[in-house]
Amino acid sequence: MEIFFVTNNMNKVREAEAILKEFGIVIKPINVKKIEIQHESLDEIARIAAQNAYQEIKKPVVVEDSGLFINVLNGFPGPYSSYVYKTIGLKGILKLLEDYKEIELRKARFVAVVALALSNNVIHLFKGVTEGLISFEIRGDKGFGYDPIFIPVGSTKTFAEMSIEEKNRYSHRGKAFKELGLWLQRFCVSNKSVCS
Amino acid sequence: MEIFFVTNNMNKVREAEAILKEFGIVIKPINVKKIEIQHESLDEIARIAAQNAYQEIKKPVVVEDSGLFINVLNGFPGPYSSYVYKTIGLKGILKLLEDYKEIELRKARFVAVVALALSNNVIHLFKGVTEGLISFEIRGDKGFGYDPIFIPVGSTKTFAEMSIEEKNRYSHRGKAFKELGLWLQRFCVSNKSVCS
Repeated sequence: MEIFFVTNNMNKVREAEAILKEFGIVIKPINVKKIEIQHESLDEIARIAAQNAYQEIKKPVVVEDSGLFINVLNGFPGPYSSYVYKTIGLKGILKLLEDYKEIELRKARFVAVVALALSNNVIHLFKGVTEGLISFEIRGDKGFGYDPIFIPVGSTKTFAEMSIEEKNRYSHRGKAFKELGLWLQRFCVSNKSVCS
Repeated sequence: MEIFFVTNNMNKVREAEAILKEFGIVIKPINVKKIEIQHESLDEIARIAAQNAYQEIKKPVVVEDSGLFINVLNGFPGPYSSYVYKTIGLKGILKLLEDYKEIELRKARFVAVVALALSNNVIHLFKGVTEGLISFEIRGDKGFGYDPIFIPVGSTKTFAEMSIEEKNRYSHRGKAFKELGLWLQRFCVSNKSVCS
């Protein structure tokens, strides 16, 4: 089956593709206006964005919202990770954590929420969470966003030091899209017309 | 005349009251859900919030959105000032500017946009801008938000070291509400039924 994905971030498209192809699902990026509300919950932001996207294209559609939540900064940059990245950037985050030398104080969590809209009112959410640490310096040149400063639990590399396949094994987005893939697989058994 | 003001920030109510009473306008705070989109333009955020508020209460209504834009941080925290205040706070902002010792590098701008909705489609925007500097330390205990670290051009005090009346002479919010007052005064001359 094919599914629309509202995003203009080709990195996200590549990561989603690498997961969903295992489920026989083809991602079709579509660049309609993504309406995001200000909210401290990614769930709400993604849910409303999916609803608006469905109203726009009237076909099953997926949106994704993700954020980096740093414990000692009370969850900052959280739902506004993208804006914070564009303004103060990785250096700003490292500066804010400069005085926090202990590993325990550098704990962070990447969260991704994938929202699938099947109609105006039927929205399913799939969440992926990856715990990790903020590195002491910028490392690696793959991936995007905060990847060069995030080390997931279970690895010594930052996300930016990993291939897409390796990152997907750890990543919040990988987990969320895998949940979507599993759900669609089950759903399509009993809804062949939607999934053809 | 009376006008509804959607906010749960009593500091903003007091500042608006102090300005608008000079125009014979009574502010009535109302706590309906304020819908704010994610956008880099305060104008858009305020416009859509006012539209949504009008749809909710069906009466002329005002919303206000404001932000602190720091030059050397590419406008951060900007439209997300409130979230940033709640997470990294004043100390976080001072930390980010720690290495910027020259006054020139500490330039910032406070912007307020007041949006008045008179119907679903008639929205008027009033903007106030105040240029200033980020102080080297937290000073004063009046006001709210970033007031203790913002020194407006023309003063040596931070906003938090000023009375409401003094702050209103300098402040972005004061200027925006004054524009609203002037506009409503003119409007009411030819629209007595709306303004009674």
